[in-house]
Amino acid sequence: MTRQQLIEEIHRKKSFLCVGLDPDHAKIPAHLKDNPDWIFNFNKGIIDAVAAHCVAFKPNTAFYECYGAWGWAQFEETVHYIRTAYPEQFIIADAKRGDIGNTSGRYAKAFFENMDCDAVTVAPYMGSDSVKPFLDFEGRWVILLGLTSNAGSIDFQHHGSEPLYLEVIRTAMTWGNPDNMMIVAGATRGEQLKAVREAAGNAFLLVPGIGAQGGSLEEVIEMAMIPQDIGLLVNSSRGIIYAGDGEDYADLAANEAAVLAKKMSLTFA
Amino acid sequence: MTRQQLIEEIHRKKSFLCVGLDPDHAKIPAHLKDNPDWIFNFNKGIIDAVAAHCVAFKPNTAFYECYGAWGWAQFEETVHYIRTAYPEQFIIADAKRGDIGNTSGRYAKAFFENMDCDAVTVAPYMGSDSVKPFLDFEGRWVILLGLTSNAGSIDFQHHGSEPLYLEVIRTAMTWGNPDNMMIVAGATRGEQLKAVREAAGNAFLLVPGIGAQGGSLEEVIEMAMIPQDIGLLVNSSRGIIYAGDGEDYADLAANEAAVLAKKMSLTFA
Repeated sequence: MTRQQLIEEIHRKKSFLCVGLDPDHAKIPAHLKDNPDWIFNFNKGIIDAVAAHCVAFKPNTAFYECYGAWGWAQFEETVHYIRTAYPEQFIIADAKRGDIGNTSGRYAKAFFENMDCDAVTVAPYMGSDSVKPFLDFEGRWVILLGLTSNAGSIDFQHHGSEPLYLEVIRTAMTWGNPDNMMIVAGATRGEQLKAVREAAGNAFLLVPGIGAQGGSLEEVIEMAMIPQDIGLLVNSSRGIIYAGDGEDYADLAANEAAVLAKKMSLTFA
Repeated sequence: MTRQQLIEEIHRKKSFLCVGLDPDHAKIPAHLKDNPDWIFNFNKGIIDAVAAHCVAFKPNTAFYECYGAWGWAQFEETVHYIRTAYPEQFIIADAKRGDIGNTSGRYAKAFFENMDCDAVTVAPYMGSDSVKPFLDFEGRWVILLGLTSNAGSIDFQHHGSEPLYLEVIRTAMTWGNPDNMMIVAGATRGEQLKAVREAAGNAFLLVPGIGAQGGSLEEVIEMAMIPQDIGLLVNSSRGIIYAGDGEDYADLAANEAAVLAKKMSLTFA
């Protein structure tokens, strides 16, 4: 998906919501627990219910890998379903991969060729040759970790007199551009989102940390939205997908997604 | 596996060789290319041939993920085979994972509970809560990226007046200890291995970059070996597993492994 297509979809829906698909057997509704394809079926319920309110889905690989090869197949089936039923949705494999050049190319192949994801999250520690192989795929995106939303982000991302996260963002934007690179920018530290926006130029920011992790949507919009192009994908996972744990879980998820989308719609003229 | 068990195995074999299992359909012998389980069968040939010369195996997940759910099953089968046929081998899932706390715990479950790997490589960018969940598994290991062997390591790992990689290593050694934490230290910059050793104390170093990437075994031994406990696992992947591409590929791999193990044996009294 191109940047322009994504922006058009955001304007059409008046929403820049991304829904995280992190299936957890302990949290899903009782009526799905014994389903032999419970991950896919849980996800399908959510996807069908919230697709009208969001522009992106973000399955996190950890929640599938922990169920082995079967879990990996459920990940593939989930991506295939979104791609087929909702081709206008932007699909992010939240994998946080990164390895030496020829090996990163393998990860890119896994997510872009085998699975037709639009984007994959990438960790920056190993530098240019760990990131660039993902950029070789036309029409696909790297979403690089910049400033993350977790407590441990304080440990290394602020290292140096120029904080590492700003150095990472500035450097990475010379490898890619706003048409193939986005930046992860946690919502939990509003004052730093502004610095991220300055370093990232017009690149889209993927913003986790809304809801369960304490970030404020209003602050994100104030600090990091750009005119016309919006430049934001704001993610919510647990707050939406586990809004309920009964047979009406998908309806409750849709309600939560609609509340966020409604707030977002107020920013469109 | 405990540190003491690993050290005893190193002394028994007079080898601290780790063999990387990175299967590539373009490079494997012709007689295996059409095998429906070519990854596992290629790996099994290598494992049986080199096990006498090495103390660890390191399959890199990228080379399995790029073949989808089937590839993931081949990864599982490979780990299961090593664990069963060669229980004395240290098994490293070279996955370079790392995510917010509850999500890193999922990755730990994938590699330690579902697959019985001894260790997993972890990327440090997201900090403490991305690393600590892996340390909660008794008898398992984190192998944290410190100074990597690729060209891109120069981009961020040297950021700051105190280079980031040394800050990462010093900080990480306060989260773990030499009984559950190892550090990745690329062999391609000999003069920096000494600084890594000082920062890591007695922790084991996993050293890639020997062979195809240009590192020197002699330099690694001089700069980073510690008395008695050795404290090194030196990895070779392509130089061993693709030593040949005919039906005798496993014999040629064994020859290459034996050459490295022989050099290593000279360091034992």
